[in-house]
Amino acid sequence: MVAESLVQADLRGVDSHGVVRADIYLRRLEAGMVQTGGIMPYTEDGAIRILDGANHFGAVVGCKALAMAMETSRKYGCGVVGVKGSNHFGTCAYYLLKAVRQNQIMLILSNASQTMPPTGGIRPFIGTNPFSVGVPAGTHPPFILDMATSVVARGKIISAAQKGEPIPAGWAIDKYGNPTTDAHAALEGSVLPLGGAKGYAISMFIDIMSGVLTGAGFGRYVNNMYENWEDPQNVGHFFIALDIPRFMPLERFKARMDLYLDEMKAEPTAPGVPEILIPGELEHRCTLARMREGIALPAKVEDELRVWGERFDLNLSDAIIE
Amino acid sequence: MVAESLVQADLRGVDSHGVVRADIYLRRLEAGMVQTGGIMPYTEDGAIRILDGANHFGAVVGCKALAMAMETSRKYGCGVVGVKGSNHFGTCAYYLLKAVRQNQIMLILSNASQTMPPTGGIRPFIGTNPFSVGVPAGTHPPFILDMATSVVARGKIISAAQKGEPIPAGWAIDKYGNPTTDAHAALEGSVLPLGGAKGYAISMFIDIMSGVLTGAGFGRYVNNMYENWEDPQNVGHFFIALDIPRFMPLERFKARMDLYLDEMKAEPTAPGVPEILIPGELEHRCTLARMREGIALPAKVEDELRVWGERFDLNLSDAIIE
Ligand SMILES: NC(=O)c1ccc[n+]([C@@H]2O[C@H](COP(=O)([O-])OP(=O)(O)OC[C@H]3O[C@@H](n4cnc5c(N)ncnc54)[C@H](O)[C@@H]3O)[C@@H](O)[C@H]2O)c1
Ligand SMILES: NC(=O)c1ccc[n+]([C@@H]2O[C@H](COP(=O)([O-])OP(=O)(O)OC[C@H]3O[C@@H](n4cnc5c(N)ncnc54)[C@H](O)[C@@H]3O)[C@@H](O)[C@H]2O)c1
Repeated sequence: MVAESLVQADLRGVDSHGVVRADIYLRRLEAGMVQTGGIMPYTEDGAIRILDGANHFGAVVGCKALAMAMETSRKYGCGVVGVKGSNHFGTCAYYLLKAVRQNQIMLILSNASQTMPPTGGIRPFIGTNPFSVGVPAGTHPPFILDMATSVVARGKIISAAQKGEPIPAGWAIDKYGNPTTDAHAALEGSVLPLGGAKGYAISMFIDIMSGVLTGAGFGRYVNNMYENWEDPQNVGHFFIALDIPRFMPLERFKARMDLYLDEMKAEPTAPGVPEILIPGELEHRCTLARMREGIALPAKVEDELRVWGERFDLNLSDAIIE
Repeated sequence: MVAESLVQADLRGVDSHGVVRADIYLRRLEAGMVQTGGIMPYTEDGAIRILDGANHFGAVVGCKALAMAMETSRKYGCGVVGVKGSNHFGTCAYYLLKAVRQNQIMLILSNASQTMPPTGGIRPFIGTNPFSVGVPAGTHPPFILDMATSVVARGKIISAAQKGEPIPAGWAIDKYGNPTTDAHAALEGSVLPLGGAKGYAISMFIDIMSGVLTGAGFGRYVNNMYENWEDPQNVGHFFIALDIPRFMPLERFKARMDLYLDEMKAEPTAPGVPEILIPGELEHRCTLARMREGIALPAKVEDELRVWGERFDLNLSDAIIE
């Protein structure tokens, strides 16, 4: 499940959450910071489930929560699963895609360790807590909204710093809380929530649902997977599944989705814009292309995988498409 | 209910959704565009309800949906109400505040008539569809996130145009799809979604849940309350209520919320920022002040109310605090 979730992210072009994370995941496993095997206890009450991830890998916990949400939603029309005791679970889209294939509407939230200040603050307090929704369509690819609540992924600032380029105003603040276009100063400071106070408020909402309400960590109590080698991460997630046939027949819903997406895509575009895109559409195309052509990995990631592979008699070249 | 929802918006300082809307609501009523009396049929299936607002006022439909969501949530732990056949229902906060007083967590979405282009588009296709969440706290005022999915309310562009001032880059495009800082050109064009494609995607998600899934209008099928005097608006809403004690004891949840909010407010602030605010906090303070001091209305609104009042032997001066 962990491997599938990482490869899936790479297939969709979300390289920041792809096999580049294999190394840190494996290092945490080796250091005993992550649990494998053993049960994940849960409670159930009506349409609500609380799952304790018991410090298993995020992808393993996420897949369990997903299955519980879908099963509950088939029973009650909606299934709500609050998750505590989890770890970094990769992209939300990994779970959304499994749900839409089963014709369910799925909303997934997760908190994350501190990287963004509250509006008006100067240092990280909340995570770039992702917000995501998957909705099946008929002839169109599914609607897959999967986003960090920051203006941009921190990875884009790292890459500007490496190239010695400035960053646009509004992306980040320096460590004193002043707006900055200097990528290095931004990396010492914090990335900003999208849309000012609105992104800050959405990120808080996600922290409340995933952390405060489930019993997981929230705010400063979500531990950083790169920096904290003492405590479990205690990440929290929140899943809401909806069973479409309780609202209207599935075929009618899909026809309405197709009409909506057709009309959106038929909208006239601004100068220089080739087409209107639906959330998830670019990633869908990238998946089709990478399924054919394979995934090019940065040399550093290839080296890391080779070293890990050698220790376990696994040969990376078996996975390479020439 | 309609009057209460408008006064409530003014109390919270959201003047754009206050009694300034009384005139258009009453004009639509008089023109037979809105229904009063008669039932609002609904279906129930597990934890899902579909309510047909039967073209009643949005506030009346919204209050009914709210009550159904809370009742369902007490039964199943969560209550989901999809609403079709409604009208403009004012601010989401009006309903959220009723829910948090009953110790429920409430998520409310609504679609709206076309005012924003898709990312890369040049003309309005989606509404500034509001996203909102209310969560009760212990000693703190409740967390009330209630926002349009546009960068700013269109009202701020109108006010810049009236003063002959430019608007910041990124707020709007002109009618050809070019970025503009000219408030007049912006009013002929469209206001932009917050945070670029992310706000566009969130607004679409809201349209899908409120419109496509419920049977209400969506995209071009949500009619404009100021411009269309032929057809019902057919606005859709979406309510999700969560019953906190299914997750953890209410007192424990409230203590965790207070800890979270205390720690957020204790964060150091950037130069010139007096304090970190919690979503809903400013509006809470405004309510306390306006409960004491009354609400100052623009002369135009006072005139409109006086004219309507005279026709029904109602005296506006009874409502004025000198
Ligand atoms: N597990 C964690 O702790 C964590 C934290 C943060 C982010 N993430 C993951 O990071 C990933 C990347 O997030 P991001 O915010 O950088 O993504 P992004 O900005 O690349 O895309 C965000 C969303 O907008 C859509 N989109 C982008 N451009 C569009 C356009 N022109 N028209 C229509 N839709 C468009 C995308 O399809 C996507 O759904 C996500 O998969 C997220 O789950 C995970
Ligand atoms: N019915 C409809 O069709 C419709 C459509 C659009 C908007 N609306 C309503 O319009 C109203 C105004 O929306 P808006 O987007 O202009 O609101 P806004 O930008 O003033 O506030 C958005 C949210 O951010 C919070 N906030 C603002 N500054 C903050 C700060 N510094 N720190 C922390 N939180 C902060 C507010 O408390 C609020 O929850 C809302 O009540 C919405 O429901 C209704």
